Amino acid sequence: MAKEITSRSEDYSQWYNDLVRKGGLADHSAVKGCMIIKPHGYAIWENMRDQLDKMFKETGHVNAYFPLFIPKSFLSKEAAHVEGFAKECAVITHYRLMNDPNGGGVIVDPSAKLEEELIVRPTSETIIWDAYKDWIKSYRDLPILINQWANVVRWEMRTRLFLRTTEFLWQEGHTAHATAEEAVIETRQMLDIYATFAEEFMAMPVIKGVKTANERFAGAEDTYTIEALMQDGKALQAGTSHFLGQNFAKAFDVKFMTEHNTEELVWATSWGVSTRLIGGLIMTHSDDEGLILPPKLAPLQVVIVPIPKPTPELADAADKIIKDLKGRGISVKYDTDERNRPGFKFAEYEMKGIPVRLGLGMRDLEQNQVEVARRDTKEKTSVSLDGIGDYVENLLADIQSSMFEKAKKYRDEMITSVDDFDEFQRVLDEKGGFVLAHWDGTVETEKRIKELSKATARCIPLDSKPEAGKCVLTGEPSTQRVLFARAY
Amino acid sequence: MAKEITSRSEDYSQWYNDLVRKGGLADHSAVKGCMIIKPHGYAIWENMRDQLDKMFKETGHVNAYFPLFIPKSFLSKEAAHVEGFAKECAVITHYRLMNDPNGGGVIVDPSAKLEEELIVRPTSETIIWDAYKDWIKSYRDLPILINQWANVVRWEMRTRLFLRTTEFLWQEGHTAHATAEEAVIETRQMLDIYATFAEEFMAMPVIKGVKTANERFAGAEDTYTIEALMQDGKALQAGTSHFLGQNFAKAFDVKFMTEHNTEELVWATSWGVSTRLIGGLIMTHSDDEGLILPPKLAPLQVVIVPIPKPTPELADAADKIIKDLKGRGISVKYDTDERNRPGFKFAEYEMKGIPVRLGLGMRDLEQNQVEVARRDTKEKTSVSLDGIGDYVENLLADIQSSMFEKAKKYRDEMITSVDDFDEFQRVLDEKGGFVLAHWDGTVETEKRIKELSKATARCIPLDSKPEAGKCVLTGEPSTQRVLFARAY
Repeated sequence: MAKEITSRSEDYSQWYNDLVRKGGLADHSAVKGCMIIKPHGYAIWENMRDQLDKMFKETGHVNAYFPLFIPKSFLSKEAAHVEGFAKECAVITHYRLMNDPNGGGVIVDPSAKLEEELIVRPTSETIIWDAYKDWIKSYRDLPILINQWANVVRWEMRTRLFLRTTEFLWQEGHTAHATAEEAVIETRQMLDIYATFAEEFMAMPVIKGVKTANERFAGAEDTYTIEALMQDGKALQAGTSHFLGQNFAKAFDVKFMTEHNTEELVWATSWGVSTRLIGGLIMTHSDDEGLILPPKLAPLQVVIVPIPKPTPELADAADKIIKDLKGRGISVKYDTDERNRPGFKFAEYEMKGIPVRLGLGMRDLEQNQVEVARRDTKEKTSVSLDGIGDYVENLLADIQSSMFEKAKKYRDEMITSVDDFDEFQRVLDEKGGFVLAHWDGTVETEKRIKELSKATARCIPLDSKPEAGKCVLTGEPSTQRVLFARAY
Repeated sequence: MAKEITSRSEDYSQWYNDLVRKGGLADHSAVKGCMIIKPHGYAIWENMRDQLDKMFKETGHVNAYFPLFIPKSFLSKEAAHVEGFAKECAVITHYRLMNDPNGGGVIVDPSAKLEEELIVRPTSETIIWDAYKDWIKSYRDLPILINQWANVVRWEMRTRLFLRTTEFLWQEGHTAHATAEEAVIETRQMLDIYATFAEEFMAMPVIKGVKTANERFAGAEDTYTIEALMQDGKALQAGTSHFLGQNFAKAFDVKFMTEHNTEELVWATSWGVSTRLIGGLIMTHSDDEGLILPPKLAPLQVVIVPIPKPTPELADAADKIIKDLKGRGISVKYDTDERNRPGFKFAEYEMKGIPVRLGLGMRDLEQNQVEVARRDTKEKTSVSLDGIGDYVENLLADIQSSMFEKAKKYRDEMITSVDDFDEFQRVLDEKGGFVLAHWDGTVETEKRIKELSKATARCIPLDSKPEAGKCVLTGEPSTQRVLFARAY
């Protein structure tokens, strides 16, 4: 039998941890707050990365790699940035170890102290704009459309695997433009790519919006976001795209000569998604039996299990199916391990979220059929071997779209418009999800709402329509509803 | 005109730096010893990574990701390992910054001192074997065949872009096995994969061998290596594969229950190649006009330059060529940038090492032909547009094999057997390259040879035949020749 998973109704948080660890996605490490991404989890990240990378390259971006370390003084160069990032950082003060002359093992060599401490990058705007200063002289050098796949470190006191860890993997795009307009277009383009990726590949519906001033990235003029909803009714910020204005160009003195021979500051964007997406993927779809992975991101799409054990006849039949499916670009494995029985294997593959399982027994074979089980609904059907390739290909497409539709139906039901603060609180407490409410636009009110309700302004949805109303807390006039939620 | 490159004969070292920087491969950063890998360089690394990753996966390996940080005490757990790696490390002592109460900007918060310092990984054996302890209980859990793509840090005082940098990118495989025999087979298999990759993709001939005890990886029982020869006659260690015995299993107490219900220590291997390979690629093939890249790793294989500038007719002809080449899986770009003249573009693409350039002018078009220039030999030929796809496809294959043959011929000519130490010294001083010499097998002699000649024992070649002889330095008996060279 598969390892036991705590049910969502019993303890949602423990259910999540069980899935991550028993599903073979990630584990805690000897270093507090740092996770080990295990092979099954890393294979999902590889699929995410490859797809995003393709979308980035199709829109003209190239990859590069900048240093892991940032001189401490760089963090202070951009006034807002220092407030946001010069806090919980890993600080390198020395560059050598030595044997303790008193026999106490290995110690830090006190003579190898750095003149200026280095910070392990929490994000790379500063080190990258320091380089752009040398790279950009003229309008001919623009735009620069660079992305980086990297690890970053933000010292976290309370961590959750994938959702909030001290070290995580991500991509960070950093672009440089000659005009504000071009930079804004880039910012919005990348938001759209993130939304497309989330919905079409992760089957995770998202709301596109712009952050309130208080929730902006440190150093941004505008932060755009995609917000998803988890099964416990809490929101998850799944990706952000920032219009940075000329803030980093100012801080690092990055100017260019225009076509008209005038000198101007360069315009910037940055945008990123991280391994946090894997947390979102899990909490959007999975159930009490384990992971449910969308076919487009599943490391393995189809598994064939011989029942009760491998035979030459079953191997022949499996070979034919494998050849057919691989020809269609479908990943498939025939599990011939005789150390475990079919029931055990079924539970294991359910735990791991493999979208389609084919149970192949001698009796099936005599009737020229195979039992097809889909992971998302757990439905089983006997299907003729003659059209099995078509059937599985269509089934995978159906699973992908069903998962999205199911998640979207839930998400849509969990958006509630409210007009007074009692209701605001009651909806959050009893139903959860997103709350659309009027807000007077001040940081004070936003902070007070958060104190009272633990909900934050997730975003002002891009598709929201102007609507006259009164702030849910203060009664002051408002022109637009804002999306609030309790969030990860 | 393209930026000037120092010639090899004038200053080999400066030639290398010019290529790396002016070829758009890498640059120095604000952090001493850490490089920026620029888009053209990173695209080469992506091609290397994708090919190696494919070869790893075809041999049953999976990827995972382990923490960037290692607790200081871990480095001391394996006796030999601590000597090799607990030296020049980036040491994290604090986890928070604060505003200086005296107005001195951002300072390290003295209250946020770590109880145990963390080291930025110089290699990951220790943190990985600490995890394997939890993952391995029974023979059923073996083998573990994991690879990691990651950044690592080894504090270097004297750095060279790609060849020796404080931070670099690499892959590190870490496998766990039930028997010594299986681990040795794995070690050798990975060495073969590295050699195949170097020769078939990088067009860089290598000698496979085993390191002397003195040159072994810290913690290994045996270190296998591939050694390449650069154009200045110096050797470059291009990849290593280590049989680690049970050393890390002992250090981290990793035991497993055998099929016969006995408890045994696990056997280990590790193996890695890094961005250093890019340095090897440059120094194997390039010339005084710039990079020469093998078609199998070139980010762009073919460029079409309109002469003297783009016209609708040329665009039509280019479209047809592009369609043909893309259909064959060949990457191609039509350069329509009107800000630069053809001569400038030719020099730029030569500098960047693009294997094939098509010069397309109206006069060519009238004669239904195009001028084809190959980067490696700089030969130009007029080719009929009718069979251009076949021609270019064959040409790319020819460039790939010619580059390898040329490098191999040079390398083979630069292997000299010598039998006395005067000759040993003279060959190194006057000719350079590899020297095959008898050696008495002692560390003392090896160290003395290095002191006297600056040459190190690169390896004992795997294909070397037993041969009775006398040590080139001491005259003591020897059974085998060893490969010496001055090396990067």
